[in-house]
Amino acid sequence: MTAKHDGRRIRLGMVGGGEGAFIGAVHRIAARLDDRYELVAGALSSTPDRSARSAAALGLDPSRAYADFATMAREEAALPDGIEAVSIVTPNHLHAAAAHAFLDAGIHVVCDKPLTTTLEEARALAAHARRSSLVFALTHNYTGYPMVRQARDMVRAGKLGTIRVVQVEYAQDWLAGPFEDTGNKQAAWRTDPAQAGAGGCIGDIGTHAFNLAAFVTGLAAEAVSAELTTFVPGRRLDDDVRAMLRYAGGARGGLWASQVAVGEENEVRLRVYGTAGGLDWCQRDANSLSYTPLGGVRQVLTRNGSGATEANRRASRVPAGHPEGYLEGFANIYSDTADAILAARDGLVGQDRLFPSVDDGVAGLAFIEAAVRSSGAGGAWTPLLRDAGPDGPDAPPRSSATGSRPG
Amino acid sequence: MTAKHDGRRIRLGMVGGGEGAFIGAVHRIAARLDDRYELVAGALSSTPDRSARSAAALGLDPSRAYADFATMAREEAALPDGIEAVSIVTPNHLHAAAAHAFLDAGIHVVCDKPLTTTLEEARALAAHARRSSLVFALTHNYTGYPMVRQARDMVRAGKLGTIRVVQVEYAQDWLAGPFEDTGNKQAAWRTDPAQAGAGGCIGDIGTHAFNLAAFVTGLAAEAVSAELTTFVPGRRLDDDVRAMLRYAGGARGGLWASQVAVGEENEVRLRVYGTAGGLDWCQRDANSLSYTPLGGVRQVLTRNGSGATEANRRASRVPAGHPEGYLEGFANIYSDTADAILAARDGLVGQDRLFPSVDDGVAGLAFIEAAVRSSGAGGAWTPLLRDAGPDGPDAPPRSSATGSRPG
Amino acid sequence: MTAKHDGRRIRLGMVGGGEGAFIGAVHRIAARLDDRYELVAGALSSTPDRSARSAAALGLDPSRAYADFATMAREEAALPDGIEAVSIVTPNHLHAAAAHAFLDAGIHVVCDKPLTTTLEEARALAAHARRSSLVFALTHNYTGYPMVRQARDMVRAGKLGTIRVVQVEYAQDWLAGPFEDTGNKQAAWRTDPAQAGAGGCIGDIGTHAFNLAAFVTGLAAEAVSAELTTFVPGRRLDDDVRAMLRYAGGARGGLWASQVAVGEENEVRLRVYGTAGGLDWCQRDANSLSYTPLGGVRQVLTRNGSGATEANRRASRVPAGHPEGYLEGFANIYSDTADAILAARDGLVGQDRLFPSVDDGVAGLAFIEAAVRSSGAGGAWTPLLRDAGPDGPDAPPRSSATGSRPG
Amino acid sequence: MTAKHDGRRIRLGMVGGGEGAFIGAVHRIAARLDDRYELVAGALSSTPDRSARSAAALGLDPSRAYADFATMAREEAALPDGIEAVSIVTPNHLHAAAAHAFLDAGIHVVCDKPLTTTLEEARALAAHARRSSLVFALTHNYTGYPMVRQARDMVRAGKLGTIRVVQVEYAQDWLAGPFEDTGNKQAAWRTDPAQAGAGGCIGDIGTHAFNLAAFVTGLAAEAVSAELTTFVPGRRLDDDVRAMLRYAGGARGGLWASQVAVGEENEVRLRVYGTAGGLDWCQRDANSLSYTPLGGVRQVLTRNGSGATEANRRASRVPAGHPEGYLEGFANIYSDTADAILAARDGLVGQDRLFPSVDDGVAGLAFIEAAVRSSGAGGAWTPLLRDAGPDGPDAPPRSSATGSRPG
Repeated sequence: MTAKHDGRRIRLGMVGGGEGAFIGAVHRIAARLDDRYELVAGALSSTPDRSARSAAALGLDPSRAYADFATMAREEAALPDGIEAVSIVTPNHLHAAAAHAFLDAGIHVVCDKPLTTTLEEARALAAHARRSSLVFALTHNYTGYPMVRQARDMVRAGKLGTIRVVQVEYAQDWLAGPFEDTGNKQAAWRTDPAQAGAGGCIGDIGTHAFNLAAFVTGLAAEAVSAELTTFVPGRRLDDDVRAMLRYAGGARGGLWASQVAVGEENEVRLRVYGTAGGLDWCQRDANSLSYTPLGGVRQVLTRNGSGATEANRRASRVPAGHPEGYLEGFANIYSDTADAILAARDGLVGQDRLFPSVDDGVAGLAFIEAAVRSSGAGGAWTPLLRDAGPDGPDAPPRSSATGSRPG
Repeated sequence: MTAKHDGRRIRLGMVGGGEGAFIGAVHRIAARLDDRYELVAGALSSTPDRSARSAAALGLDPSRAYADFATMAREEAALPDGIEAVSIVTPNHLHAAAAHAFLDAGIHVVCDKPLTTTLEEARALAAHARRSSLVFALTHNYTGYPMVRQARDMVRAGKLGTIRVVQVEYAQDWLAGPFEDTGNKQAAWRTDPAQAGAGGCIGDIGTHAFNLAAFVTGLAAEAVSAELTTFVPGRRLDDDVRAMLRYAGGARGGLWASQVAVGEENEVRLRVYGTAGGLDWCQRDANSLSYTPLGGVRQVLTRNGSGATEANRRASRVPAGHPEGYLEGFANIYSDTADAILAARDGLVGQDRLFPSVDDGVAGLAFIEAAVRSSGAGGAWTPLLRDAGPDGPDAPPRSSATGSRPG
Repeated sequence: MTAKHDGRRIRLGMVGGGEGAFIGAVHRIAARLDDRYELVAGALSSTPDRSARSAAALGLDPSRAYADFATMAREEAALPDGIEAVSIVTPNHLHAAAAHAFLDAGIHVVCDKPLTTTLEEARALAAHARRSSLVFALTHNYTGYPMVRQARDMVRAGKLGTIRVVQVEYAQDWLAGPFEDTGNKQAAWRTDPAQAGAGGCIGDIGTHAFNLAAFVTGLAAEAVSAELTTFVPGRRLDDDVRAMLRYAGGARGGLWASQVAVGEENEVRLRVYGTAGGLDWCQRDANSLSYTPLGGVRQVLTRNGSGATEANRRASRVPAGHPEGYLEGFANIYSDTADAILAARDGLVGQDRLFPSVDDGVAGLAFIEAAVRSSGAGGAWTPLLRDAGPDGPDAPPRSSATGSRPG
Repeated sequence: MTAKHDGRRIRLGMVGGGEGAFIGAVHRIAARLDDRYELVAGALSSTPDRSARSAAALGLDPSRAYADFATMAREEAALPDGIEAVSIVTPNHLHAAAAHAFLDAGIHVVCDKPLTTTLEEARALAAHARRSSLVFALTHNYTGYPMVRQARDMVRAGKLGTIRVVQVEYAQDWLAGPFEDTGNKQAAWRTDPAQAGAGGCIGDIGTHAFNLAAFVTGLAAEAVSAELTTFVPGRRLDDDVRAMLRYAGGARGGLWASQVAVGEENEVRLRVYGTAGGLDWCQRDANSLSYTPLGGVRQVLTRNGSGATEANRRASRVPAGHPEGYLEGFANIYSDTADAILAARDGLVGQDRLFPSVDDGVAGLAFIEAAVRSSGAGGAWTPLLRDAGPDGPDAPPRSSATGSRPG
């Protein structure tokens, strides 16, 4: 077990995450787990009353329970012991404005995903973050799992050779019925284009799957052919998405995310196959990773076990065989971000950062927008345009009748 | 364990399956397992010498070891105790001619998949089979697994409600390298367009996946958006295929088949999700089937166990917990075909037949040809045209930017 | 896939296995699967009527459907093309007399387990078999699984070092209620001491577990401390057995078998741990075998896959990933026995035989009798006496208060 | 997700858990995870220097970093804001003295397992705790898993009927070699009778298994027949234990714990079978629980999923499908203890407490001592004597030659 702590705690604020919220409590546990942060301020709800009540329940000083994020950013920045970092855990449509405000106030940002509701907003926010030199973490939390990090290490070490095939999926069933009409607050905003953006399922969990594949493979997706479907009558956003992906270098991908897959609780799975080996990881068995070298025998690598890479060990707290889970993976994002914030405090630069960044957020929005366009264009291959320049023409088709020949 | 036997054996011949073949031996075990057939004649190889040697090794009467299928069909038809059925287990390009010959001779046909190398051939063969009133079985053997049959029963019984999502895959790795260049006879013909047809991976295993989904769901695929890829340099056919499918009634499907998925031995998996429940089956754990009703608890149904349907029990030989496998599933196709042949002998008609037929073979070729066309047309949604009429226009696109609304 | 066939079939008879029997049909499939035997005679039931009817259903020549095994042995021995081998699949108490009769007639024997109902009978039968030089196979069929054979190979090759711990279990639930009182013929004789012998669960499935451990490890059990329990009221034999075992060389074992383990269909599992590695195999996942070297990474070896030993490959028929099951494992016992019979026919001797023999039957009865005595003596460590000599004193205790020190 | 927090934090101290310790860090995370405790004091090491250094690393006030537990108990009791509870995480032989000191000081106790090194000490400590009316929690942490709690609920609700069979095991391999001789501090004290007590493997992990079975079944073990073995040369305590157990009411149990099971990381598994159903849980798949009703279909219950009991939901933080693990289970013990402490603070009594208590510690020592005696007495059935009275005679043997008949 690696020491996570050098005795310095980071003063943290939170925007969103008040009564009735879900992901805010997860962020708070994740921040607390390794004792790297101290939650001292919050604008926990858009309703001042609820905001104050939520702050009291968390034991915050009432003077630091703010009615809105703008006030919080301004006033905390003026305090001698004001917050150094903020967690933004609101519905999607509020991420961008809040993040800009805290960047302006010189405060590091941890933001939930997807980064924003449009690619244009995402690009602007990324530009702001880059100018600021502040730390910006995006909680694509599945990248915090030790075995996911080992998978990435193994790809980088060449254990898979050249990657050919990437299969990623995220299936759940909690929106199999019209639960947005039954007072479920989580369902309501996630299926509302005004709050969620143009993507429903694709934005909420499809981007997790997309990011996970990118994190492990290191490959950039160049084009997508997608179909977004809305199965539940009356729903305003997609609840199922399937996509074919073309990656730089010729790899081909398949992505499936669904919120109507009855019986699937939160099945996240990534398989990667290259010329020299194949990998298989799923959240249900998060503490192991299957690897088979070409012509060899399947190996089951484990969290903190024999064969663990340094990144695996560093992301582990307890011995192999004792499962760590979702909250520990999420905490790894927070603790790595704490390292980056302390490094910034100490004037250190240039560290390799394992946590997803604002750039991953831009890539996620590029994926959403390209997939939405492809789905509307009869499955046409559509390029992912991460850069802010004018849209270029679609990438030329790369397939022939008897099989494309990856470049 | 259901009695499989009423004491009558069917006289069987075989075309192909001589020395060096793979699937011929599987067919012979499958035919023998329930003691329903007696192999008495063969044209086991295109080389007369090898054909005779193979026949001797199988203990066939030398006078019934034929040099070619045409002679065999003609001479066996003239014998008083000539074969009643023939198994065609040659490379794909020889299926059609052989099948026509035996149909002409009034002999029932068991044919390996895919049915033919072109949709046109397939349609012609299906028409011939229908005119003949003979039994025609196509060995999409995964439909012989007891739990696959139970899955079908459960869909029919409404346990899934209206089907929304179908995910099917078949992954293997035996063609991850250019093994067709190393004297591997199986690899050589399966990657040769002249012997295999226009589809490599899609024809060899993609059609199994496609058929499995159709068998269980009972849904007809209407259109496909596909990408076929050839990863191994120098290969002449695809070795990886991914496809999005639109089924009649609005269900959406994803199909992935690959021969370069390093570490996957023969991973066949089908998941089906409807408004009322979800199903999950894979060959690796072939003796169980996972079913979750909407809002309920996951159930693990087993072969011949509690909760088994009649089709499950009928397809089982030993008590639950003792695994049955690939050969028993294959044998179920043969034994059910034997029932149909004996029923025909007895003048019975109108039985419900569980084994795949020549019509499934036409559907498979329609899938191959539509997928090849879609892949060549930038992933455009392409209709599957099973009927022999002139090709109509593509189905109109059914998706919009924020999710299609299934009809 | 190894050729199983050299074109010569062995003429086989069967004792027991008529209408209403279970294991007889399994033996017939196992004998037929690789086309090594031809069933030509039978004394299938103790009721002449039923015997004749069963023979007709199997297509036997009525003149070779015998009313009793003694007549069958005598008359078949006198035929020029009489049976060369016999399968004895009656209830336990009839094994010995039938086996003696066929040995006397010079006919090879395949006998179901347990060998006899008493150790004394077993020793006498073993002596007879040794004198006869005939092949005698005992169908402890779990030893026929390819991965079980690979496990044995790996132990022999030193992959586990010195064995320390052996955990074996066989759990099922079909006798969780008093089904012997409800007309279930299988339950009735298996819980009747007159037909089953002194052991109920221990004889029926405990001996399978005991044999499996011995087959893989090559270790002889020296002493047992056991408790046999009868949970179902009114039952006359044990339905649950747990035992601690001391093996030659200091290894320690745990064995559990139960017929009242609700939810377990036929869970057979063996784990073996040595100084250099550990193995884990279970019937539910019969096509794989888990092996971990000391300090290394878990490997998942597969049937006919990469890393397969010769014994694994020889016992396989289809490629890795396509599951083979219980019947194929059973067939491996039959096919290996066929090899031994043909070798005997050809005058060959001294082959390494993988199938369990009459000596394994003696060991099984020694286990049953020692366990029954230990259970009656308050769990006292009781030696297993396989040899026919007078019983010696119990082995001296080898444990101390703070842990025994294996010799 | 249930709210864990009412805003009140408990002031906590820690004895042991300084530099080089393992379980101390686990306790700290567990205490912190739900924000119910604030660590404010410690006697973290027996070396004053190391104690101070460890305290600094944890950010403790130097004035509350004590050189020994006696001083800490005395001085903290005198502070107006002194600790309300203490975590004792030293090697076993120091538990009793420290616990007595804090009980004397009126401070609630959380103690690691096993409770003490002798049964006599355990009884004395239990008597002290009962007199004190303070909360005393013993961290048999596996009882904190939500699915383990659901298993207990299901037994209580009669879903299993009368329990017949209990199989429990805990296998690991970290002591497969003589690592106590290589400077491994954890290995050194755990294999030293002076620090660990009379049990090595049985005390360290065997008691976890024993407690887990008791927690879920609610059954008291009455007698044990055991064998403790020391496989690693030179080791002074057992590293493998197997035991047969007789429970009140006639249930029979099997327990196996091993520290030399190469390849097993920390395999904890419990299976319980009754007249009406069976349960199966293992740590490797901690978020699910398998349940099969007699004659029914296996159900896979999940953490916080459909079919979850109230105790399951209360012990969960995140939605089903997102795994929670070892630390969350451990935290549940801490958070439930916090509830009990706050209830005591508020003058509430009589709550049903889910966390293991000092009485479970007595039961654990009774198990260790009876097993050690049985192992030294040739496996003789030995009663577990939890009460402080004079040892009575052994329970009369309950088994007969053909199976015991549970009372």
